[in-house]
Amino acid sequence: MDFEKKEHPEFPTVNKAHVEQVIVPELSQWCLTNGVALASSENVYTAVAAPTTVFPTPVPRAAYQSAKQLQKPFNKLYAQIANSKWLLKETKSLAKADPEFTGRLFKLYEDRTAKSKQTLKYGIFRSDYLIDHKTASVKQVEFNTVSVSFGGLSSKVGELHSYLNVMGKYDVAGKSFYEPGELHVSESIVFLVKALAAALTLYKVDTEDTAAKREQDDKVVLFVVEPKELNLYDQKLLEYNLLKLYGINSLRATLDEVKTEFTYGRDNRLVHKKTGKEAGVVYYRTGYDVRDYAKEDHWDARGFLEESFAVKAPDLSVQLAGTKKIQQLLTEDKVISKFVDDAKTKKELMDSFVKIYPLDNSEQGKLGKKLALEKPENYVLKPQREGGGHNVYKKDIPAFLKGIKEDEWDAYILMELIDAKPTTKNFIVRDGKLSTEPIISELGIYGSIIFDGDNIHMNDYSGSLLRSKLVSSNEGGVVAGFGCIDSMYLMD
Amino acid sequence: MDFEKKEHPEFPTVNKAHVEQVIVPELSQWCLTNGVALASSENVYTAVAAPTTVFPTPVPRAAYQSAKQLQKPFNKLYAQIANSKWLLKETKSLAKADPEFTGRLFKLYEDRTAKSKQTLKYGIFRSDYLIDHKTASVKQVEFNTVSVSFGGLSSKVGELHSYLNVMGKYDVAGKSFYEPGELHVSESIVFLVKALAAALTLYKVDTEDTAAKREQDDKVVLFVVEPKELNLYDQKLLEYNLLKLYGINSLRATLDEVKTEFTYGRDNRLVHKKTGKEAGVVYYRTGYDVRDYAKEDHWDARGFLEESFAVKAPDLSVQLAGTKKIQQLLTEDKVISKFVDDAKTKKELMDSFVKIYPLDNSEQGKLGKKLALEKPENYVLKPQREGGGHNVYKKDIPAFLKGIKEDEWDAYILMELIDAKPTTKNFIVRDGKLSTEPIISELGIYGSIIFDGDNIHMNDYSGSLLRSKLVSSNEGGVVAGFGCIDSMYLMD
Ligand SMILES: Nc1ncnc2c1ncn2[C@@H]1O[C@H](COP(=O)(O)OP(=O)(O)OP(=O)(O)O)[C@@H](O)[C@H]1O
Ligand SMILES: Nc1ncnc2c1ncn2[C@@H]1O[C@H](COP(=O)(O)OP(=O)(O)OP(=O)(O)O)[C@@H](O)[C@H]1O
Ligand SMILES: [Mg+2]
Ligand SMILES: [Mg+2]
Ligand SMILES: [Mg+2]
Ligand SMILES: [Mg+2]
Repeated sequence: MDFEKKEHPEFPTVNKAHVEQVIVPELSQWCLTNGVALASSENVYTAVAAPTTVFPTPVPRAAYQSAKQLQKPFNKLYAQIANSKWLLKETKSLAKADPEFTGRLFKLYEDRTAKSKQTLKYGIFRSDYLIDHKTASVKQVEFNTVSVSFGGLSSKVGELHSYLNVMGKYDVAGKSFYEPGELHVSESIVFLVKALAAALTLYKVDTEDTAAKREQDDKVVLFVVEPKELNLYDQKLLEYNLLKLYGINSLRATLDEVKTEFTYGRDNRLVHKKTGKEAGVVYYRTGYDVRDYAKEDHWDARGFLEESFAVKAPDLSVQLAGTKKIQQLLTEDKVISKFVDDAKTKKELMDSFVKIYPLDNSEQGKLGKKLALEKPENYVLKPQREGGGHNVYKKDIPAFLKGIKEDEWDAYILMELIDAKPTTKNFIVRDGKLSTEPIISELGIYGSIIFDGDNIHMNDYSGSLLRSKLVSSNEGGVVAGFGCIDSMYLMD
Repeated sequence: MDFEKKEHPEFPTVNKAHVEQVIVPELSQWCLTNGVALASSENVYTAVAAPTTVFPTPVPRAAYQSAKQLQKPFNKLYAQIANSKWLLKETKSLAKADPEFTGRLFKLYEDRTAKSKQTLKYGIFRSDYLIDHKTASVKQVEFNTVSVSFGGLSSKVGELHSYLNVMGKYDVAGKSFYEPGELHVSESIVFLVKALAAALTLYKVDTEDTAAKREQDDKVVLFVVEPKELNLYDQKLLEYNLLKLYGINSLRATLDEVKTEFTYGRDNRLVHKKTGKEAGVVYYRTGYDVRDYAKEDHWDARGFLEESFAVKAPDLSVQLAGTKKIQQLLTEDKVISKFVDDAKTKKELMDSFVKIYPLDNSEQGKLGKKLALEKPENYVLKPQREGGGHNVYKKDIPAFLKGIKEDEWDAYILMELIDAKPTTKNFIVRDGKLSTEPIISELGIYGSIIFDGDNIHMNDYSGSLLRSKLVSSNEGGVVAGFGCIDSMYLMD
């Protein structure tokens, strides 16, 4: 069928009463029946709908396309960094500035990573962007190389918005508001699982003699998770699809459980004691934050996994490639040029960067310090941390820096703030309640890469994510309560 | 691939600690992500997992097959009853004995049903059985002709049990316990929707000129529902599949909302005022119990729907065909012979009946009264009611009967209790808590029939349901708290 291009406003024109009475109940019910849920902190046997927007948020199709184009080059770039001696050198000096976390990760890397006989490396990445208001182009916020989340929920929220549209809930007359093709459903729930399955297959090829044997064995993916994960269902959606689409079983273990539940088999194969199943892929949904290693045992468990024969997503080299410091260094032409030969690709990658300064004693570092103290309102200060809640924003920067010793400043980077345009006509629903505050949306592009030295076995775009946060909040933690999962209305 | 027939016990041999620690969390999470949920009475924006069994319950494959075989003849039998003058005669006299409910339904039937120009009738039925312990044959508990529920949840619980099996949760060594083909997944979530779509198509054929026009129009299915339905998600699952599999939109309205939200168009077409959409099929998930008509307005709303041009599932003739009284009368050879010519079919149907007595002044009625007073422990006394909680069991019968006037006894039937074997090795999970009491399982077979006088447009088996209840409870209300949704392990 051919659809005539229909012009319509950026947002449905239904009023707030319609949203409250018609859309919110339908939306909440859909969420609660389709896994768009968070575990309830009070009772694990109930679920609450995850926070979402009511409408998809408009994103220029060109911006999404360009971010998507960048993903494979970024995947490859970070794979090369993970393989490089340069990473070790830089991380070694960063480890001194941040002994508490980068230092510990690096020590574990030195002690154990190389002891594993597994040469396959695997990255599940997410490159996050804001859309610069003036140029309508995507600017990178950060590149995550460990425990990227929301790939399950993202696809589901796309389906949710499509459902509401086709059911006529976005229109008082009950018609569809958006045309087919305008609403984007992220492929992440399928593509991330595809990459996990591919990694497991490569693990098997490497370790088994015949294809027939590979078919029959029951190697599994181990999800390494937090003890009380509220974002549980995002993970379960991937587990379900892994089974449904590829017949692959998964196991879950916290860092506390790893060493009691698993043992080493031949060549340090990771064997589940109770069932004898072999975990061929270790998929981390924890381990990215210093708080994840509250006990020495947790470091030990990470080391145990690191030294095992399993393919790690990620191993420590890949995880360490994702520090904010590396991100800052890559904005320097001479650094990125070490890894990216093709001039066009390099330019495209660099076009997505905003200015990032070190706070060391180099020329750029001196400039960074000056800007941090004198023009802080244009910047965000970031430590070598992941998971939200660690950054220092704008006018808080000078006092923060003055509160720590200057030789510790080196552990931070100073990043230009991206000027994204707030959206004013969407709503966030959380626990059935509406917020009408303006929101800022951050586009995430998932990527998967499996490599063995220079040999790249798979390098894929793996779907997208749109997260939206209240303008009034610096950060958009979905589980923490400031952000929500959104989806894209792709505007031409 | 060929599977060698593997002998295994009727139930997995995992211990209670394994069930609690390994199965229950996995089961609850699957339920909460896949719509096996009940609305929470406290907060509509949370869901609780619906009660289910931990394992599928063994059912002889032959018993299931024979119940399935009976469905089309039963559908046809009840369609013929709905068409018959005999039904009107019998219902008229029943109306006198039960003026409060049957009387009201019958009056509405007389006043309004024939005024509708719609000649298509549509039944969504469920015939319920217990398996007689001695003969291992299915015996009919009742035949429901209105608002049969759990078709959505039933399929999902089958998937749940299959998921737990394939994920190795039923086995300490993490292997599958059941063989492929042993676990039955009810087709109801698809087949009930298929019948709704077929009814809507027939409605359109009847009323529109061209096939092209039919493709484009946006006629919908109206779900008539209770105001605070805890079993909401069972219904939503059907709505979602109706859209997903057939592109058909649905609307929902309570009996309170029907007349404010809908109006009559040409030929009493049921038109949604706000959107102008036409409801071609009215699907009742309320209206089966006297409590559903708390106000006169509710009767009026039912009449308004009845007189409309929409195809009703069911209209009052079909609903009234499902009284317990009709069920009792059908156990008499001379009655069932009016409707079923084929001797073999008649025998098969009658083989599924247990003895049911009237409590009137006929010979059988006198015997019934005697048995009710003298041997009550073998019987259940049933009024003309649906939805659970109305029956009187065993030793409570004499006192109950003595408490009402003898000329009201006629509104009850006395039914022989079916002796089903309790299952002792399953568990019921409700709110994450286990019950280890023995259970009794009731097999339901869904059926759909669309007919126009003697012309049968569709007559289908529409899936199955296994509900299990605590032996200690007379009835197994799932939402009320005594029963749960189960699935079948089909034993050869
Ligand atoms: N340069 C920037 N311009 C504007 N906003 C920014 C910038 N950098 C960060 N932010 C905001 O702060 C949030 C957190 O920053 P960032 O993603 O770098 O931290 P993080 O701790 O790695 O978070 P996570 O890994 O949980 O996403 C971003 O999601 C964005 O909303
Ligand atoms: N003849 C019987 N033998 C054994 N148990 C019976 C018999 N009849 C009814 N029961 C038990 O009582 C329950 C309720 O009976 P029945 O289904 O006839 O009532 P109802 O009010 O129509 O219920 P609903 O329509 O909600 O299923 C049955 O599910 C079954 O557990
Ligand atoms: Mg981030
Ligand atoms: Mg990050
Ligand atoms: Mg019943
Ligand atoms: Mg009934």
